[in-house]
Amino acid sequence: MNPPFQTIALIGKYKSPEIAGPLLALAEFLRPRGLRIVVDELTAAYVAHDGIEILPLEEIGKVAQLAIVIGGDGTMLNIARALAPHDVALVGVNQGRLGFLTDVSLDTMNETIADMLDGNFVVEPRMLLAAEAFRGEDRLSQVLAFNDASVAKGADGGLIEMEVRIDGQFVYTVRADGLIIATPTGSTAYALSAGGPIVHPALSVFVLVPVCSHTLSNRPIAISSESTIEILMHRCADARVHFDSHSHLLLEEGDRIVIRRFERPIRLLHPRGHSYFHMLRQKLRWSEVL
Amino acid sequence: MNPPFQTIALIGKYKSPEIAGPLLALAEFLRPRGLRIVVDELTAAYVAHDGIEILPLEEIGKVAQLAIVIGGDGTMLNIARALAPHDVALVGVNQGRLGFLTDVSLDTMNETIADMLDGNFVVEPRMLLAAEAFRGEDRLSQVLAFNDASVAKGADGGLIEMEVRIDGQFVYTVRADGLIIATPTGSTAYALSAGGPIVHPALSVFVLVPVCSHTLSNRPIAISSESTIEILMHRCADARVHFDSHSHLLLEEGDRIVIRRFERPIRLLHPRGHSYFHMLRQKLRWSEVL
Amino acid sequence: MNPPFQTIALIGKYKSPEIAGPLLALAEFLRPRGLRIVVDELTAAYVAHDGIEILPLEEIGKVAQLAIVIGGDGTMLNIARALAPHDVALVGVNQGRLGFLTDVSLDTMNETIADMLDGNFVVEPRMLLAAEAFRGEDRLSQVLAFNDASVAKGADGGLIEMEVRIDGQFVYTVRADGLIIATPTGSTAYALSAGGPIVHPALSVFVLVPVCSHTLSNRPIAISSESTIEILMHRCADARVHFDSHSHLLLEEGDRIVIRRFERPIRLLHPRGHSYFHMLRQKLRWSEVL
Amino acid sequence: MNPPFQTIALIGKYKSPEIAGPLLALAEFLRPRGLRIVVDELTAAYVAHDGIEILPLEEIGKVAQLAIVIGGDGTMLNIARALAPHDVALVGVNQGRLGFLTDVSLDTMNETIADMLDGNFVVEPRMLLAAEAFRGEDRLSQVLAFNDASVAKGADGGLIEMEVRIDGQFVYTVRADGLIIATPTGSTAYALSAGGPIVHPALSVFVLVPVCSHTLSNRPIAISSESTIEILMHRCADARVHFDSHSHLLLEEGDRIVIRRFERPIRLLHPRGHSYFHMLRQKLRWSEVL
Repeated sequence: MNPPFQTIALIGKYKSPEIAGPLLALAEFLRPRGLRIVVDELTAAYVAHDGIEILPLEEIGKVAQLAIVIGGDGTMLNIARALAPHDVALVGVNQGRLGFLTDVSLDTMNETIADMLDGNFVVEPRMLLAAEAFRGEDRLSQVLAFNDASVAKGADGGLIEMEVRIDGQFVYTVRADGLIIATPTGSTAYALSAGGPIVHPALSVFVLVPVCSHTLSNRPIAISSESTIEILMHRCADARVHFDSHSHLLLEEGDRIVIRRFERPIRLLHPRGHSYFHMLRQKLRWSEVL
Repeated sequence: MNPPFQTIALIGKYKSPEIAGPLLALAEFLRPRGLRIVVDELTAAYVAHDGIEILPLEEIGKVAQLAIVIGGDGTMLNIARALAPHDVALVGVNQGRLGFLTDVSLDTMNETIADMLDGNFVVEPRMLLAAEAFRGEDRLSQVLAFNDASVAKGADGGLIEMEVRIDGQFVYTVRADGLIIATPTGSTAYALSAGGPIVHPALSVFVLVPVCSHTLSNRPIAISSESTIEILMHRCADARVHFDSHSHLLLEEGDRIVIRRFERPIRLLHPRGHSYFHMLRQKLRWSEVL
Repeated sequence: MNPPFQTIALIGKYKSPEIAGPLLALAEFLRPRGLRIVVDELTAAYVAHDGIEILPLEEIGKVAQLAIVIGGDGTMLNIARALAPHDVALVGVNQGRLGFLTDVSLDTMNETIADMLDGNFVVEPRMLLAAEAFRGEDRLSQVLAFNDASVAKGADGGLIEMEVRIDGQFVYTVRADGLIIATPTGSTAYALSAGGPIVHPALSVFVLVPVCSHTLSNRPIAISSESTIEILMHRCADARVHFDSHSHLLLEEGDRIVIRRFERPIRLLHPRGHSYFHMLRQKLRWSEVL
Repeated sequence: MNPPFQTIALIGKYKSPEIAGPLLALAEFLRPRGLRIVVDELTAAYVAHDGIEILPLEEIGKVAQLAIVIGGDGTMLNIARALAPHDVALVGVNQGRLGFLTDVSLDTMNETIADMLDGNFVVEPRMLLAAEAFRGEDRLSQVLAFNDASVAKGADGGLIEMEVRIDGQFVYTVRADGLIIATPTGSTAYALSAGGPIVHPALSVFVLVPVCSHTLSNRPIAISSESTIEILMHRCADARVHFDSHSHLLLEEGDRIVIRRFERPIRLLHPRGHSYFHMLRQKLRWSEVL
């Protein structure tokens, strides 16, 4: 079941010239395999080099079957959103500190990637969410998020109040600092610090996690990712909706955010022997005892 | 899609003679429909009556297509465990206070049941868990639970330490007061008071919720109910494993508890218009504002 | 120990004309007692009336020994901050829903106030906090807060990082949505929804409550209100510091917020028989059972 | 203000023969100072030696001004309870892993102790709690605890329900797995894992922390340690009350536990430069970032 990775994109963390050396070394290392190696334009700023083909990120989605991303989880989020509409698998390489999404170590990158190209890898599909924001009939925006969409109070700290509906059913009206709708991937990001559960990435689940709810009995809920979630802004001062803590949109009373699972999951490739639980233990220091 | 409910069991809360009146009235009310009405032996202690057939609970599972349970959530848990191996649907009638599982009100029971028998109901399959406890090669017990299986420290308060494996993969070793493995149904019971998330009953999910974990970063995890969960007792003083807070078993070091989804879900029937979220709002008082 | 309440201020909730009737009735009711009755200018907009003396709020602090505040907890916070530097006791009257700070019911206001003026009351001193914000050597602001001072991330959702020092000792560096420094009064407000403990108002204690800390093991801390708390902004995007969720100030990297207990507590007067715990039970619905 | 430490007790962790070497070396190291060195009988089992005087622990309280305890926090709890009624200061030496109460490292013990004996130390008084349990008029037990008193459900997992009163005032009736009454010292022990706040040891405060309360809005409360706390058992199955997770007592319906601050604090001595916050950061790994 070894997919033919004919074209491989190498993508480095944004504004990180220190990536250039390892990335070029990887390109050299892969050259004898007769693969087409491409880099995106942003990465190319640091790794300009005769033998490497440069493409806009949008083009990469069309030609590559695999993207090797060197950076942190933030870089992986960005690239995953950009490539999700295409059929590109992702490998994440961390620069020293294990990431939730970047489990190949830079130190052993070449050997690990070689082994993976020989077919020794585990495929893990991960869902993204697709969010739309509406003002009346107008669609203000349509974005993908890999971690979460979250409504948050604005800078003036004014009260926000939202109504939540799932598949058309009224769930609750909540006054809170915010509300996070997270994918399983996002369950170990912002949602975790707000008190949400960890959701195994194999689950088809969204979690709704209120942030500092005024109602003390309001708790995180896990629901099917087949569901459509609507958030209707009742009171919003200068509230915003954020997507993966990156892009955001200023909200007005009456605005409506609609969240669904994005139609195609992205595929993460892990080295053989990968364990999600091992990663959790490392990242969350579960072996520590007070 | 109106299933032929030919034989209906009426089951009352244990040791609750006040159930007798409404239960007999319901039997009378249903009589003109030409249905076979049966009651279990425990209920019969209060409702002995010429026209009602009495059967052991085990027999009821074989002959009835529907059981109407008058009582609280605790009664529903008991009856669900007993009838789960059979093909009997359940309706829960509360005695005044809405239950998580008993959404028909005693006040309007007859009309509501009549309407449901006319086909106006919603079917909700709910999973149970099947747990086995092993000491070496010996299987100490095998039980079903509708809410949860939970390991808990014993009366002397001694430290317990457990190793958790999911599908053979090591997850963590945890020192804690206890560990709860809950079904979606159980997510609004003990697991909720221990800080676990609410899990929509339509999800095929178990949640693992540590109770007072010594490791502060240990958090509830939601995993697939296709998974097999193993708990291996490292240190257990006089720890026990509890099933639905009902039966329990004293544990020894080295004991192993294995938890899987029970092979067949039980079907709850709700009146038309039932809303899970409405029930949550009512039970958790989400509409209250400080 | 009946203090001579010679001059009494009547203060109504801002922009709430419905207060006028009860407030004037109270003034009439008190008239035979030979007391000087004053109202502040904002309240006067609704209750203009021959026999009532109107003063700016600042002047009221100098002449009144008692202020009767009709409104909600928000109104009480505002008036407490304004009058704290003066020697004025406060009574809070709620318009129907018991408040944390307003425990006299409008329905029985006249009788209750009469009883209190006869000496039947309980005095409860409550601390405020005094906060200063510095940019380099410049003091940007100096304010009082009755509930809390809180640093919060801004509208763009960018990461904030703060260093906290107590009495010059380094406590921690925290990345979080925010950090709340609450008085005992504030412990049942924002800090509670962020997971902080309830602090009995008799305690000389501040609580530091992180909001969505990235470090999962960071927990609320209670420290002496004799202490000086410093918050140094390391990274702040467009973070702000809020005081009682009312005034706020845009922060820059390097800004420093210094928090101390305000030198004089404000005195709340409660009707005889007042119980702090009764109020908590009512407000937090502790008698409810799932 | 250098107290004359004429007699020093050396106390080792129970059943830990590995303590013998360092302990004897410390005794040798201190000998030239002309101090009287004593060991308790349990420790003597491992360090029997010509030149060291052996006394029962009760006697040590009467003759020693300082006890140097080598072990972990558990050993410190035990010794603190035993010596609290006497005027003995404590120094805690850890065997490698920093403890909440044992901040001298075994590696540098001799030098650190020498420095402390030269007057270079910080005194920190810490409160204990005194608990009594009553059945009707009979006092069943009277014990000290350094960390906490906690009521916990028993082995059969049956529901427990308690009524809490503070200074005679009704606080709440709670159904829960348990209820912890912690001193500031205990706030970083069991109470922390149950969701309680950290309480600075300089505060005269008790915290009440429910464990898995059925009422989701029940939260930890900090109250004055001048207060008297009463817990009245309404329903207790085979509930017990535990003191410092060590001794415990089986409870019956109607039993009453009364908790007060013990009349004299114990004095911990720390090396010059000790920081409570430093210890918290180390123990709770606050510097870790996900």
